[in-house]
Amino acid sequence: MKKIGVLVGVCLSALLLASCGTSGSTSSSGSKAKGSYQTTGTANSGEYKGIITNGRYRTSKSRGVGVSQNTENMLNLKSFESGLTTISKDHFSPKSYVFQEGQILSKGTVENWLGRKSKDNPEGLNPKDNGKKDANKRNPIYVQQIEEQDYMKEENGKLHLAGITIGIGMNRKDYYQKEEYGATYTTDIPKEQMIAEGKKAAAKVLARLRSYNAVGSSMPIVIAMYQQAPNDSLVGGTFYATTVSNSGTQMGTWKATDLKNYVFPVTDTDTVPSKNDADSFDNFKNKIQNFFPNLAGVTAQAQYDGDSLQGLNVTITTQFYSETEITSFTQYVAKAAQTYLPSGIKVDIQIQGSDGSVQSFVARDNGDKGFYTHVFSSY
Amino acid sequence: MKKIGVLVGVCLSALLLASCGTSGSTSSSGSKAKGSYQTTGTANSGEYKGIITNGRYRTSKSRGVGVSQNTENMLNLKSFESGLTTISKDHFSPKSYVFQEGQILSKGTVENWLGRKSKDNPEGLNPKDNGKKDANKRNPIYVQQIEEQDYMKEENGKLHLAGITIGIGMNRKDYYQKEEYGATYTTDIPKEQMIAEGKKAAAKVLARLRSYNAVGSSMPIVIAMYQQAPNDSLVGGTFYATTVSNSGTQMGTWKATDLKNYVFPVTDTDTVPSKNDADSFDNFKNKIQNFFPNLAGVTAQAQYDGDSLQGLNVTITTQFYSETEITSFTQYVAKAAQTYLPSGIKVDIQIQGSDGSVQSFVARDNGDKGFYTHVFSSY
Repeated sequence: MKKIGVLVGVCLSALLLASCGTSGSTSSSGSKAKGSYQTTGTANSGEYKGIITNGRYRTSKSRGVGVSQNTENMLNLKSFESGLTTISKDHFSPKSYVFQEGQILSKGTVENWLGRKSKDNPEGLNPKDNGKKDANKRNPIYVQQIEEQDYMKEENGKLHLAGITIGIGMNRKDYYQKEEYGATYTTDIPKEQMIAEGKKAAAKVLARLRSYNAVGSSMPIVIAMYQQAPNDSLVGGTFYATTVSNSGTQMGTWKATDLKNYVFPVTDTDTVPSKNDADSFDNFKNKIQNFFPNLAGVTAQAQYDGDSLQGLNVTITTQFYSETEITSFTQYVAKAAQTYLPSGIKVDIQIQGSDGSVQSFVARDNGDKGFYTHVFSSY
Repeated sequence: MKKIGVLVGVCLSALLLASCGTSGSTSSSGSKAKGSYQTTGTANSGEYKGIITNGRYRTSKSRGVGVSQNTENMLNLKSFESGLTTISKDHFSPKSYVFQEGQILSKGTVENWLGRKSKDNPEGLNPKDNGKKDANKRNPIYVQQIEEQDYMKEENGKLHLAGITIGIGMNRKDYYQKEEYGATYTTDIPKEQMIAEGKKAAAKVLARLRSYNAVGSSMPIVIAMYQQAPNDSLVGGTFYATTVSNSGTQMGTWKATDLKNYVFPVTDTDTVPSKNDADSFDNFKNKIQNFFPNLAGVTAQAQYDGDSLQGLNVTITTQFYSETEITSFTQYVAKAAQTYLPSGIKVDIQIQGSDGSVQSFVARDNGDKGFYTHVFSSY
């Protein structure tokens, strides 16, 4: 009797294991369509699904160009890309479109376009080198980064390209060296000139894109113009205009956008769209920074659409002496955020130790009332 | 008419500001009791509230000792303290007790107790230096850390101390130098000896605590014994026994606990309580690590109570080339975690860039079904 019991037990585990394995390999790969693609699935409604082929993410054909074009200030890459996705949602709803990293423009193509025009590089969108070293006499680099995002639709179980968003990052400041490893100089580019050069570049990019068979003449193409933030900025740049081309090389009217980023706390010389918001943040900061005998650093990135605050990314840094201090502080920060920070907007608060490692965070999504808190634990 | 409109507008903003200010200063300070204390409030049910006096957290009287006693492996401090809080919840329910950082034992006192016994330090819990340098002949340091946690109750609007938890961290390995700045040697301490020395130390600590007026003879005191992890361990140590003294220097019976921590993936020479769990993790890891053309590193801390998995802290590190990659990867990880990782347990997954900075995370609380995902954004 005992032996049989053991035998049944073994079979049962074998069955359980087998069934585990099966259910695993089916649902693991995300929602599987009739065709050959799979998606990442979406964790939150309002987010795009991404595309997986053979268990691997379909990365951009120009993967890595954005990183190398923004080495001096990575915030320009982060804000550029998350902004592009946000703008795309207005045109290609996540309900009916699947996101794909750009598959039309290759790394080599984008790098050529971002270069200067020359005999070797006739496709360069930036002016040829005139040999001058003087900040006001040289030809600056206007176009700093270009990114393609593809938006796909499913038909008969297959995905096909149904829309493209192109972001173009323009410089207001072009940093350059007069000699290799030399000091860094800056050519300032007036806003009007940046806008004019951006329009020229956008027209060229649009025409070139249309020449790809995969794009053709009637694919909707959204173009979003982005002003790069200076290298020393603690926030990324600004999208200043968008347009849509529904067919051919005809560009729709340019629509001005006014998404601007600011740093809190503000100094006496800074101007921000709303003094109320800045004061709210200061009250929050004052409440927080004296919680421990040692001071906590409290700063924030604030995003505005015109005069209207859209969201805050707060970073709090302090030295903790125990896990219980982290838990108590996190509770306190959530309470203070609820009381002092403007309501209704998205708030992200990262709480870091003195070594910069994230210890906990507090977040509220757009429109939510309460804050979610999470303390990163360790066994 | 226009002038009046403007005037009313100004008054309105002033009123709004004023009302903002008032509501702020009332609810800001946490729940205010009739007495003079305030608390941090609690963000999640099941967590303790902490104590604030005059807008400042009441930090431990021995603040900082834990940090300096665990410099070689901070995981020993993290797991020791979070474990102490967990053990305390069994004795002092967060529903009726408020947490206070230890206020009885001062920094000097704890430091003296953690020292060796000597003429100058008669209170040292560790044996006197016998002058020997040989690993097996010298007297090792048995007691590595001591922490006090206070649990308070409210009566008539005032808080009073109603229970104490004392954690004692014991070495199985004592690291030492034969000469200043010299090589590090190790004295191994057999498990039985660690347990015996721990009991002796616990009895002394209990008797000394009872001699404080603030404690007295009838205060419940929980004592939790912790085995320190080796310096090179990727997880913290283990609580191996607890006891309660309800009055006097009488110790209750020692209750063995079996909370152990492991690292996943396991190597061929490791033994873990459940091969199933280790296999589940390996499947998850395999699914994740090939998502991008570049490999992702996937490791985890696993906590077991006996043979039963309690929770996983997973760390995934990979190089991202865009924000959209982070979003897609996070969605994919949440889906894979749902499919492959054991259900019902607490799971924390931190997703880091190649520079170690946290980019997003995926978490499931004990008993929850779905995963919460969050991508840290930047403007």
